[in-house]
Amino acid sequence: MTDRQSQLAGQAERSDRHDRELAQIEAVLAAMPPVRAMAVRAEAFDGSRLRLSAPLAANVNDKGCAFGGSLAGIMTLAAWGAITLRLARAGVAAEVYVADSRIRYRAPLYADLRAVGGPAEDADWPGFLARLDERGRAGIAAQARIETDDGTVIAEFEGRFAAKR
Amino acid sequence: MTDRQSQLAGQAERSDRHDRELAQIEAVLAAMPPVRAMAVRAEAFDGSRLRLSAPLAANVNDKGCAFGGSLAGIMTLAAWGAITLRLARAGVAAEVYVADSRIRYRAPLYADLRAVGGPAEDADWPGFLARLDERGRAGIAAQARIETDDGTVIAEFEGRFAAKR
Repeated sequence: MTDRQSQLAGQAERSDRHDRELAQIEAVLAAMPPVRAMAVRAEAFDGSRLRLSAPLAANVNDKGCAFGGSLAGIMTLAAWGAITLRLARAGVAAEVYVADSRIRYRAPLYADLRAVGGPAEDADWPGFLARLDERGRAGIAAQARIETDDGTVIAEFEGRFAAKR
Repeated sequence: MTDRQSQLAGQAERSDRHDRELAQIEAVLAAMPPVRAMAVRAEAFDGSRLRLSAPLAANVNDKGCAFGGSLAGIMTLAAWGAITLRLARAGVAAEVYVADSRIRYRAPLYADLRAVGGPAEDADWPGFLARLDERGRAGIAAQARIETDDGTVIAEFEGRFAAKR
């Protein structure tokens, strides 16, 4: 193969893996009745952060804006899914659970929900993998947020997840 | 009326009001598609704290226990509903919004969800009403929890709600 052919093959392989990862997360989400009702879709995973979306219609409250529980749910799922997929890329089979969360609700959302989440920026991922390997169990800080298309912050999530091999 | 008759009439009136309050909260819950999917029921309101329940089957995750988003959602709704009903008893028409929350997930739940929530024990309810009256907007601390029938704590919620007349 030429360099260009090899580059294209590499891209195709990464694209296939990306599609498989999103399909894998969507299959787990669809297996949870309350999440299926939220109609959550996996949009993109960059190796560390996962973007999820959900239509407003399935997540609306009595005031015509997004239900706080749906905002909390999709941010928690984005962070959880990102950690799950990143562990899978590292070849680690583990269950991931939410341990605690802090959420700030900043503004009402009158549009579809788009959440991005993953390990916290200052989280020690190699240390997390090492502790998980040594002790079979480890915790990691995570964050997520929901913004509108024009950059208005709707809600912010910080939390901690536990992984168990 | 004798004292006894008057006492019984008072009990009947309180019981009617209690039924109307639970029906009122259930009507609002049923108007929110994601909450309707959780099949949340209003069980009891003691004037300050609201008890909600939801079947595990509608709120189960891929591991066979209650979905974290459903635990967060039902605790938030119990606190929100209690504040809404207590405001209504005080004759105040106001919209109630969640502003922030902190949740600790302590144990998996393999049974139906039962959440109790309301204003925080140390919340200044008269001050909240006074500020709402003066400024048209006020905030109040709230708490909620989910326990199993044998008293195991599943999840704890602390947060702040804003009310707007």
